[in-house]
Amino acid sequence: MKRILITIEYDGSRYSGWQKQPNQRTIQGEIEDAIFRALGQRIEIFGSGRTDAGVHALNQKAHFDLNVPVPVYKLPQILNSILPEDICIKEVCEVDKDFHARFSQKKKYYQYKILNSLRKDAFLAYRVGKIKEALDINKMKACANILIGEHDFQGFCSANTCSENFVRTIYNITVEKKEDFIIVTVCGNGFLYNMVRIIVGTLVDYSLELINDEDVLEALLKGNRQKAGRTMPAGGLYLKDVDYN
Amino acid sequence: MKRILITIEYDGSRYSGWQKQPNQRTIQGEIEDAIFRALGQRIEIFGSGRTDAGVHALNQKAHFDLNVPVPVYKLPQILNSILPEDICIKEVCEVDKDFHARFSQKKKYYQYKILNSLRKDAFLAYRVGKIKEALDINKMKACANILIGEHDFQGFCSANTCSENFVRTIYNITVEKKEDFIIVTVCGNGFLYNMVRIIVGTLVDYSLELINDEDVLEALLKGNRQKAGRTMPAGGLYLKDVDYN
Repeated sequence: MKRILITIEYDGSRYSGWQKQPNQRTIQGEIEDAIFRALGQRIEIFGSGRTDAGVHALNQKAHFDLNVPVPVYKLPQILNSILPEDICIKEVCEVDKDFHARFSQKKKYYQYKILNSLRKDAFLAYRVGKIKEALDINKMKACANILIGEHDFQGFCSANTCSENFVRTIYNITVEKKEDFIIVTVCGNGFLYNMVRIIVGTLVDYSLELINDEDVLEALLKGNRQKAGRTMPAGGLYLKDVDYN
Repeated sequence: MKRILITIEYDGSRYSGWQKQPNQRTIQGEIEDAIFRALGQRIEIFGSGRTDAGVHALNQKAHFDLNVPVPVYKLPQILNSILPEDICIKEVCEVDKDFHARFSQKKKYYQYKILNSLRKDAFLAYRVGKIKEALDINKMKACANILIGEHDFQGFCSANTCSENFVRTIYNITVEKKEDFIIVTVCGNGFLYNMVRIIVGTLVDYSLELINDEDVLEALLKGNRQKAGRTMPAGGLYLKDVDYN
């Protein structure tokens, strides 16, 4: 029995998110099924965290324990030939028995891709969040600076989030313009339900002057979700990377 | 009543093709519905041709007759705001009453995108045809040269194609390598059912030496579908352009 860590890329647009659910296509479910079909072992895999329906991953991480009947390096090829084309095992390695994809993580990076344009592009459907009004990335950066640090982010998660502890640390938020895209990258020690999508929506609404510094501070200091910005659509969000030690 | 010509881009991967069918999501159906919802007129639109389920378009063309209650140039914005994100009206213009999107066409261009690599890319699922074995574009070009010209293409369409006349002219086939993609562009005066996908499959199988010159000539001269190459998957095919006048 070996503990295996895998790195997974997926286009989440045809899935009901990461987490296994009855009668739903999910990333976790597809990978567990592929392992069962390839190796005959019905195991559970543990992701670094859930991604919502429609959210993508460039480098999601998950671990599982397996009696590996083949050299570990052969697992990606075996599983990729069975998995749907929109889920790809990019890397695999053996890790210590006390490693846990969720609990061992130190930092997580999410990327949000905004199409900041009036144009419509059929091939970007489900892959960007579109904002037609011109955004000012300097204003977005100014708003980001308010949010960086350790805070209680109860005002930046969906109202029905079940958590006992809303304190998270945002290490960094970068905002870059590339042609008519704006890429927001958020690095933190963990994220609440919809937190990245609300952070990016807050940067957007702040840039559009729909909310101001006082609103952002009230959302942050009083946990008032109504004062933070919109929840951006799922399709623009990419789990970019997970750092361990 | 004006005759309107529209240029349409679509990601076909979530549709049962161009042609309207009961209880199926189709491109034609979505556009007719959008016109009805926007303008209250239930009309029929005429495409330059059908595209199959999963096939994309960069510049599909269609015409229709409409009592246009707004300036014609405003139609794209109105329709795009109603259409799904993966269907986009790119251009619109008024044409003569005797113009027909299908019958007035002179040339049609299709592009086929091959991912020629062992790698898997989740975000290219449904957008390329993948060939793992290394292809030689010079061999593909040599095979293409056999096919260029006016021929009876009965050997290069699906067996169940209903047509009285299988004669078509291929004006040109280009094969280009870009990184690990191979782009095949086929220009002709018209195409039979699955013809482009079989032409590209023939170039592929010829390059892989699964078929030779004699096979290709037998497919071409005797209409023997078995001697031509594989039918490439729909997801790599893009209707690139339609030429009129």
